[in-house]
Amino acid sequence: MTTAKRDTYTPDTLLTVAVRVFNERGYDGTSMEHLSKAAGISKSSIYHHVSGKEELLRRAVSRALDGLFGILDEEHARVGTAAEQLEHVVRRTVEVLMAELPYVTLLLRVRGNTGTERWALERRREFDHRVAELLRAAAAEGDVRGDVEVRLATRLVFGMVNSIVEWYRPDGRGSAEREVVDAVVRLVFGGLRTGG
Amino acid sequence: MTTAKRDTYTPDTLLTVAVRVFNERGYDGTSMEHLSKAAGISKSSIYHHVSGKEELLRRAVSRALDGLFGILDEEHARVGTAAEQLEHVVRRTVEVLMAELPYVTLLLRVRGNTGTERWALERRREFDHRVAELLRAAAAEGDVRGDVEVRLATRLVFGMVNSIVEWYRPDGRGSAEREVVDAVVRLVFGGLRTGG
Repeated sequence: MTTAKRDTYTPDTLLTVAVRVFNERGYDGTSMEHLSKAAGISKSSIYHHVSGKEELLRRAVSRALDGLFGILDEEHARVGTAAEQLEHVVRRTVEVLMAELPYVTLLLRVRGNTGTERWALERRREFDHRVAELLRAAAAEGDVRGDVEVRLATRLVFGMVNSIVEWYRPDGRGSAEREVVDAVVRLVFGGLRTGG
Repeated sequence: MTTAKRDTYTPDTLLTVAVRVFNERGYDGTSMEHLSKAAGISKSSIYHHVSGKEELLRRAVSRALDGLFGILDEEHARVGTAAEQLEHVVRRTVEVLMAELPYVTLLLRVRGNTGTERWALERRREFDHRVAELLRAAAAEGDVRGDVEVRLATRLVFGMVNSIVEWYRPDGRGSAEREVVDAVVRLVFGGLRTGG
């Protein structure tokens, strides 16, 4: 017999557990039973904190989306040339992805079966669209190449950035974070070729 | 009552169905029952063609891996500067990914729970390693930047390339294929910045 743990969770600490389980089993494959087992508290204790697993998903992807949209409000994303703003946004997106790794991972895996998932996909598209607009402006200003279609370039750049969730694991020292951020910015803007 | 279709499958046409189901449900989540339903033939008919779902997985990922490793034997992957060879390999990798889309998609989603999956992961790592060696040689020859660590650069480049499976769908005309291939080569080698 398993002994239920005393419920010392807050909605935030419960969220940490839920996001781990969602990322391991997939959101669709996670039941309240799985969450209850992982948290070591009863299902009714979980319902004391949240209305159900969809609320946990909404809180989790909101945290990732707030981090990402917050970037667009930063000063360096609003002043300077479009290319400078774009570089700031790319750099900060990688930083937010690494700082909020489990939340961004979950956001990137959302598929669209529930209202919350569809809302999250819509917000992601909106973020990509805002970045694509910056890229378009930078191309118009002549600082970004015009021979790759803007939407395609945005997809490929996010493809590189988002792939980081597949292998990056924090080492607690922060030196790896810095190396990854610099590598992405160098490759995205200058490419592999020397003299770029 | 469903009427079983007359079994006119060959191992190859059965593979097409199996790969579609594996990509939809995940390999772990696919049972022989699912394959039987999708193919419209009985489980024993499937066993007439193959020993089980793991054989189907092996055939499918082999097709993707043969396509990828075949690139490394092509003349342009073996002559010229390392940077030229690398560019050929990147270009052809995108082409093979698009030509063998369902097979490469499956390969990229393999997780390592069975012997076949672990073998596939090992072969993928070997391919990545071969590309990393080319990148290292190109950096030594001075044609590729030396300020991004080789393994990290390889991961990021494959991150961009592999992300194509998430959104690319063939239109049958081939014009989109060419645009994507050119965009990847331009961004990977020259980056977004003009004058690169």
